[in-house]
Parts: sequence; structure tokens; C-alpha cells
Amino acid sequence: MNTETLERDTSRVDLYPSRGDSKAAIVPRKHPCVWADPATQPPVDRSLIEQYERDGFLVLRNVFTPDEVAHLQAELDRLRHQAESLERPEVITEKGSRKVRSIFKVHALSAVFAKLAADERLAGLAAYLLGDDVYLHQSRLNYKPGFHGKEFYWHSDFETWHIEDGMPLPRALSISVSLTDNTPHNGPLLVMPGSHKHYVVCEGETPPDNYQMSLQAQEVGVPSDENLAWLANDSGLVDTAGPAGSVLIFDCNLMHGSNSNITHLPRSNAFFVYNALSNAVQAPFCNQPPRPEFIATRDEITPLVVRRNTADDFRPA
Amino acid sequence: MNTETLERDTSRVDLYPSRGDSKAAIVPRKHPCVWADPATQPPVDRSLIEQYERDGFLVLRNVFTPDEVAHLQAELDRLRHQAESLERPEVITEKGSRKVRSIFKVHALSAVFAKLAADERLAGLAAYLLGDDVYLHQSRLNYKPGFHGKEFYWHSDFETWHIEDGMPLPRALSISVSLTDNTPHNGPLLVMPGSHKHYVVCEGETPPDNYQMSLQAQEVGVPSDENLAWLANDSGLVDTAGPAGSVLIFDCNLMHGSNSNITHLPRSNAFFVYNALSNAVQAPFCNQPPRPEFIATRDEITPLVVRRNTADDFRPA
Repeated sequence: MNTETLERDTSRVDLYPSRGDSKAAIVPRKHPCVWADPATQPPVDRSLIEQYERDGFLVLRNVFTPDEVAHLQAELDRLRHQAESLERPEVITEKGSRKVRSIFKVHALSAVFAKLAADERLAGLAAYLLGDDVYLHQSRLNYKPGFHGKEFYWHSDFETWHIEDGMPLPRALSISVSLTDNTPHNGPLLVMPGSHKHYVVCEGETPPDNYQMSLQAQEVGVPSDENLAWLANDSGLVDTAGPAGSVLIFDCNLMHGSNSNITHLPRSNAFFVYNALSNAVQAPFCNQPPRPEFIATRDEITPLVVRRNTADDFRPA
Repeated sequence: MNTETLERDTSRVDLYPSRGDSKAAIVPRKHPCVWADPATQPPVDRSLIEQYERDGFLVLRNVFTPDEVAHLQAELDRLRHQAESLERPEVITEKGSRKVRSIFKVHALSAVFAKLAADERLAGLAAYLLGDDVYLHQSRLNYKPGFHGKEFYWHSDFETWHIEDGMPLPRALSISVSLTDNTPHNGPLLVMPGSHKHYVVCEGETPPDNYQMSLQAQEVGVPSDENLAWLANDSGLVDTAGPAGSVLIFDCNLMHGSNSNITHLPRSNAFFVYNALSNAVQAPFCNQPPRPEFIATRDEITPLVVRRNTADDFRPA
């Protein structure tokens, strides 16, 4: 475990300070959510782009066909079984159990999920919204098991990516491909629509190797109850449940979380974080070394070559 | 803490064994859910009684008027503030926090909630369904705070009441009066419709003072994953969310639980367990002394005198 701490680089202007000396606060976001040239034809209906800009997220149903979903599910199962016997940092287990919760850097572990990450329905849309070539800041498979799926508390991804990874601007987004049917009760992602327009400054000093804790239960980078109550009353709250094959696209600064899952229905998805190439990570905005490569791409930044896949491309080897 | 253990009374026939030497299993319930004389006129539409018999629960909306709800909410708040400064066993706090989760034996602490417990809309219906005079086996106020409400795992109340309290037969039911709006996402009670017709035998030895643990997170009297999966596939799963003023009636053997609540919306209710007078508790069906009086009435068994209330009856003193 790396316990050295680094000096914060004070020569840089930090446009989104949080933690350290910061006090809990809600400040306006300084940058757009949709970075596309307005003259460019969007890959989906323009009303959906406007909805994304307003709400900070979009749920698209039936993006992947049942055949594609079946192949991706088979690959998901194959990787989970493989992961159960792997003692690798990329494999995250549920607190107090050996059940696989997430597998990180899945685009490097699986040719199938590498092709999915580059699929034009995902990477093409991401490149349009971010107005740039894109690369994968992170990729993972999430398994929220039935009966014992843990909750994940409210947070903005950008707060963490900015402070711990040194991502300069909120010019990134996440895309989640549902590989199981999500219902309101099996722990779907809950979001506060429109919350992406506010930056929620958090309190607390980032501890060494914070990511190891935060992957199981976030304790730093957590908004105050007061700020969350304000945002929830301002924005409301909806779930993003949809059947297998649905796609959820959400801005990096959207406030989101999920309740526990005591139902028998597992919830699995493939999860990709796309960052604009011009927004590549720098040194972290805290006094800690960067998080490891499998959580936040730094050394292996490669622009994605967008591709068109068919169901056969997703067939497990 | 009482650590003495008692010998199980082997002279009695235990019609619903569980824990101890028992292996996890699902067995048929041996007794009816509705005990009313069919010739008696029900206090609600007969189709609702049939629905209750089939599903094991019933949600009735608008049972209490907005005025009544407002008074009950005021009394709820008054008792919570009072409870925060009380170090009494009746007051249960959230694990790892001082926030009040439940206040037990509320019919003895509050004249308002005593009147509510005896209200003909609740106690009258309970007496009809159980075909007997009824008494309060337990009463409590539940506060599921916003942001940090904990989950409550799947269980049948009757399994606990039988084994730990010595309740002979499943001739009891619970009624929950919603005092806040319940949504699908603020941790509403989830139930498996029809599961009350199966008795789920659990494994494990009942430890001393198990109730102190089980009030925060149940660890004994928990069905196996395999049995839960069978029941969930057989029964399905629904939530019982409803606006403030709704009433949920459910059979003592219905499988139920609730997810965590990360939303800003608290979830509060008044909760009464009615038992048939002829089904009064005996010695526990495990080698432990009975649970305390505030959790399970034993010494103070008194048939309820059903009464008709108006909003003024619920006005806090």
C-alpha cells in the first residue's frame, strides 16, 4: 500500500476545488454538458440531446437486440466465474463476502467488451456529446447480486475524478448497458435530474488509497445531508430502471446513487466512462498519488476507434 | 444482559418448529389466514377479504383523513424528540448513529396512539379477520430516516413470534398506518404475495438476547437464499407503497423485508400487531427466556375495546 503523500501543485488553477480546506457548498457548474458543434448532425434525435442537456441523463431502450444481449450475458457470466478464482485488484468483492461486485478494466480482459466499448451506439454518441475524440477513462462490469446487493450512496463521479484523478473539466460521461432487467426494487441507479448543473463541494481530507474503501462504501467525497436535501428538493429523484438491452447515458457530474437489493433479482451492467481526449487526466487535485491504472486510465490513453458491431461480434470466444 | 438458557418444554407439540435442530425447508401452513365466521358481515368489502386471504396482505388508501394524519404526525414528531433524550430500551436507534429508528410499546407511551390502536378501522378489522377478540402483541412507531435508512432483510414475523415469544399459531396480523408518503424508493415494505401459505423453517440456534441484534439487523430466523429464491419465483414481489393515511394489513406469516433508503424522503408509520386472545403467548419454542414485555406482550394481555375515533381524538396533548 502506497502511503506517501504528495504536495498539491499550487501553480495550477483548480476550477472545481473540493475536500481539503473546502467547506460543503453548492456552486454553479462552469462548463457545458453537451460540447457538440451545433452544426453537427446528432446520432440520435435532437430532442434527446436537449433532454440530456436538461436532465443530465438519458435512458434509451432496445439499443441492443436480444441476440446481442444474450451473447454479452454469456461473456459476463464467463468473466464472473473466471474472476471468482482470481486474486486481482481489478476484481472487487462485496463487503464481507467473496461475491464479485465489479470487474474493472474489462476492455483489456475481454475482446467482446472491448468491441462493445467502441460500438458506435456508445462511443459514437459519447464523441458527439463531448465534441471530441474519446478514450476510456474507466470500464467495468457491475454485478449487484440478488438478496445481498449493497447500497451505493449519493455522489458525483466528477468530484472524485477531478480530485483523485486530476480530470480537469466535466467533459466526460458514463454509459451503462443493462444486461439484466432492472426494476424499481433491485437497486437501480437513482438520479437527481438536472443536478449535473451544480457542483457539490465536499468536505474532508482524501486519505491514502481512498479508492480501496470508496469502491465498497464511499466515505470521502460525500455531499452533506443539507446539500443533498437542497438538490433533491430542487431536482426531484427518479430511477433509471429499464429492461436488458437498455442504455443509460449520464453526465459525469450528475448526482446519483442506489439502494440495496434484497430482491432475488440480480442487476448487472457493462459500464464505460468516456472522457474527451482534450480533457485527459493530469496530476490529482489532492495530496495523494494518482489512483491505479485499472481505475483511472493515465498511462494508456488511446482514442477509441468507433466501430459498427453485429451480434456475432459479441459471441464469447 | 440475561444469559441463562432454558430447557425447551418437550411435552408440548410444536406445530411450527424452526431453528435448533431444524433444517432449512418450506412446509405448508397448517392453519387458515382468515378465521372469521363466514356468516359474519365483514367490515370491508368481501372481495378485499378474499384478496387478503389469497395474497396475505391488503393496502387500503385514504383510511385516515388528512386532518387525522396531521395530528398523528404531530404526535409522532413529539415522541421522537422526547425519545432522542431518553435512554430507554423501548427506543431503538439506527446502527452506528443516534437517530431514532423505532419506539416500542407506543400504546403505553401515548394516549393518541393508544386510541389509534383501538380504532375500529384497525382493531375492528383485525378482530374480524382473526375471528376473536384481539390484544396488542406489540406496538411501535417506525422512523426510516431519509439518506441513511437501513435495509431490513426478508423474514416472516410469525417464525420469530412463535420461536422466541411462544405464540402457538399463525392467528395474528400486523397493521401499519403510513404517516408519510411511501414511494417505491424510500424503502417501502416489499412483500411476496401468497408466501403466507408457506412456513419457512430457518436454521441456527437462537442466541441469548437475540432481539437486541435482530431489531437492528436480523441474523437468526433468516430464510436460506435457496428457500427465498423458490418463494420469490413462486410468489413474485411487490411493494406496498401508498400515500400518508394508507393502511397496510398483513398476515403474520407473510415474507417481507425492505431495502435501504438513500432518498431524502423519510418513511414513518405506526405499527400494531394484533393477536387473537385465544392465541396468547406461552413459553418460547426455543431454549431462551421470553423477550421483554415491550417487544412481546405477556404479562399485560388485555383485550382491546374497539372504539370509533374522530380527528380530535388524535390531537396531541
